[in-house]
Amino acid sequence: MSKINIAVLVSGGGTNLQSIIDHIEAGNINGKIKVIISSKQDAYALKRAEKHGIEGMYIGKENFPNLKERNSRILETLEEKEIDLIILAGYMRILDENMVGKYKNRIINIHPSLIPSFCGKGFYGKKVHEAVLKYGVKLTGATVHFVDKGTDTGPVILQKSVEVKDHDTVEDIAKRVLGIEHEILPLAVKLFCEGKLKVVGRRVIVEK
Amino acid sequence: MSKINIAVLVSGGGTNLQSIIDHIEAGNINGKIKVIISSKQDAYALKRAEKHGIEGMYIGKENFPNLKERNSRILETLEEKEIDLIILAGYMRILDENMVGKYKNRIINIHPSLIPSFCGKGFYGKKVHEAVLKYGVKLTGATVHFVDKGTDTGPVILQKSVEVKDHDTVEDIAKRVLGIEHEILPLAVKLFCEGKLKVVGRRVIVEK
Repeated sequence: MSKINIAVLVSGGGTNLQSIIDHIEAGNINGKIKVIISSKQDAYALKRAEKHGIEGMYIGKENFPNLKERNSRILETLEEKEIDLIILAGYMRILDENMVGKYKNRIINIHPSLIPSFCGKGFYGKKVHEAVLKYGVKLTGATVHFVDKGTDTGPVILQKSVEVKDHDTVEDIAKRVLGIEHEILPLAVKLFCEGKLKVVGRRVIVEK
Repeated sequence: MSKINIAVLVSGGGTNLQSIIDHIEAGNINGKIKVIISSKQDAYALKRAEKHGIEGMYIGKENFPNLKERNSRILETLEEKEIDLIILAGYMRILDENMVGKYKNRIINIHPSLIPSFCGKGFYGKKVHEAVLKYGVKLTGATVHFVDKGTDTGPVILQKSVEVKDHDTVEDIAKRVLGIEHEILPLAVKLFCEGKLKVVGRRVIVEK
């Protein structure tokens, strides 16, 4: 089975990116990261790319001030590299609708809550965990899903829960959730690269 | 520590009621069920009451056609029996606002999802699990919470998750969720009866 060509889109430190790199280097994932695209010039994820000999690109407001041009440049890159799978690993931009349509069920995102709780517009980064604490739920978690035109509304691939403890801070929850993100994102990528994810309506079936 | 006087409000078969009766009879809960009130005359829960020598009452549309009178009769009963804790165990009626105000943080409900997912108006019984299947989430669960004026919006006491498997039916999910309802509802009641639940804003702290 030939390897799946992967592009990872990032905006920040890229610990989820690192978890995928590690699993690929360990031979657990039948894929190859062809390019890492960052929306921020100084994202540490670009340093990670360099360290691991992966092509890193900055495509952002400084070098492409016009949104349409920026999206075109990303789309061209994906086509040039013959990308099969796009992974959003803390990518803080809304994807172009064209791209979402073109890569239907081939764009994977990770969200730091148990969707459909604490997701959608306004729920990103720490804001998610702040809302979790404020609501007072006892469980939260992370969700890997395919990206559709909505915000965090696409078919769910994997979910895992963690406890919210009585005296947790936002940082405690963030750390605990990140731990499981690093489990379920590489696992979802692995399953995708083995051709085991089948989307039936809104349900994602894992084929044996 | 004197025993907590409990009223259980039901509408149906009462397997959650049974789980509480069992834990009380086993000596795990420092409480006594003084009355079981059913909104349906033929609810099997009333048979359970009889079997266990607990007073059972039908207060419903047939004997109290007027809603206001019905609510008054329930409230009077709670006062007569000096009830400290009200448990809604599959009670299919909206509680009177008066009662909710009077028994603030002393009414416990169980909901068959991970609140705030799949809860609120229209989400009851099988409808919850149908929505879970339709959405395609991989985790669902149950939530025990205090009742406030909203629908399923009160402070969360306990939550536990269960998997949704690839070929699950609504019945499969209902059965799996009911299994954990029978764990977390008696546990929440036990903690309440030991005076260990402290409500701080929307958060419920379990004191050691």
